[in-house]
Amino acid sequence: MDAEAHRQTAFLFDLDGTLIDSVYQHVVAWREALEGVGINLAVWKIHRRIGMSGGLFVNALARELDTRLDQETLSMLPGLHADAYMRKFESVRPLPGASLLLTTLSEQGVPWAIATSGAERYARLALDLLGLPQETPLITRDQVRYAKPDPDLFLTAASTIEVDVRDSIVVGDSVWDLLAARRARALGIGVLSGGYGREELLYSGAFRVYEDPGDLLGHLDEVGVRRPL
Amino acid sequence: MDAEAHRQTAFLFDLDGTLIDSVYQHVVAWREALEGVGINLAVWKIHRRIGMSGGLFVNALARELDTRLDQETLSMLPGLHADAYMRKFESVRPLPGASLLLTTLSEQGVPWAIATSGAERYARLALDLLGLPQETPLITRDQVRYAKPDPDLFLTAASTIEVDVRDSIVVGDSVWDLLAARRARALGIGVLSGGYGREELLYSGAFRVYEDPGDLLGHLDEVGVRRPL
Repeated sequence: MDAEAHRQTAFLFDLDGTLIDSVYQHVVAWREALEGVGINLAVWKIHRRIGMSGGLFVNALARELDTRLDQETLSMLPGLHADAYMRKFESVRPLPGASLLLTTLSEQGVPWAIATSGAERYARLALDLLGLPQETPLITRDQVRYAKPDPDLFLTAASTIEVDVRDSIVVGDSVWDLLAARRARALGIGVLSGGYGREELLYSGAFRVYEDPGDLLGHLDEVGVRRPL
Repeated sequence: MDAEAHRQTAFLFDLDGTLIDSVYQHVVAWREALEGVGINLAVWKIHRRIGMSGGLFVNALARELDTRLDQETLSMLPGLHADAYMRKFESVRPLPGASLLLTTLSEQGVPWAIATSGAERYARLALDLLGLPQETPLITRDQVRYAKPDPDLFLTAASTIEVDVRDSIVVGDSVWDLLAARRARALGIGVLSGGYGREELLYSGAFRVYEDPGDLLGHLDEVGVRRPL
């Protein structure tokens, strides 16, 4: 095999905050869920944990609180969050350039997939929002044992589209994406559209940081994507 | 006069995101106001402009959009935002440690005031939320020509409580607070409770960054506040 055959760049995209503008709806939905069981947690602390696995989220939450949470209360939270998020879903929009970035990659023969810590039923709604077909390569929380920042989602995504994860670029808005990228041996690229600061993403291993998918599309050359001859 | 007389440290506090947990409610309220006039702006870009003057916010907004905004549309935005924010106000809580920090400073004889780019009627609701008397030194957008990042709010606040702004410490959650602090010749301290990243605040001139008012209270010695003898 020649060197080229090993170096087909592929893209593995996070979903919330990376392709769709849904982070703040998730934040407010978690806040409502927590209030619903009598927990008052500052909103910025919720924001910084969006995108990590639900189990880790609940562990992190328990650390912040003075009181111990009983199992029954904890087990109610994911459902309360899901209900609150669905009520807000009509206000979720694609991020600027998201659809065009994905169609451009497809046109140029660059393989890509979506890998999200979220549940499949939300992710399928997001495909509609982005104008993507339901057969789009999509790995969700339901398909792996551990969500981000474990590498499983990105490893499974690379395997599904038959690319080497080590030749793949993970694009995400959160430090959990970038940690999962590193653990999967992929390159990480950050986008600011989830509301993290640039340096938080750089310090978590992002090799480049763009504003949003449209900004990445305008700079694909910087990450080594060549137009086909 | 001896050196001590010149060096009475005073604190000038921002309000939203610094003493009360209201930034995300403001973000969502602005998003609803913008949608109300047919403008779709990514939510993170709204978040990063909370705390700046309304006039500058609208200028910044115009730069992000492809289309020109007519004056009539622009003039509707503040009212739409105010209405949307008031609907969400019941979910606003004091930030951890805010009330205790302020009463501790008062007990130790350290002068302080609140200076906010927001309107007086919201700020007065926030005083109630914090359990503060209505005669608390409070400078609002209504009392100065230019809000943050101009220095006017902090200059007026220092003058109101009869302290030298150059001996004052501004505490804020946003880069606009820290820029206004620098322009007012005050020292700036950042808090993460408005959702900015630590480095964003440091690069904007924060000398120290704490999580929230409670974290600052636990480290008052680091900013030179001595217990009275």
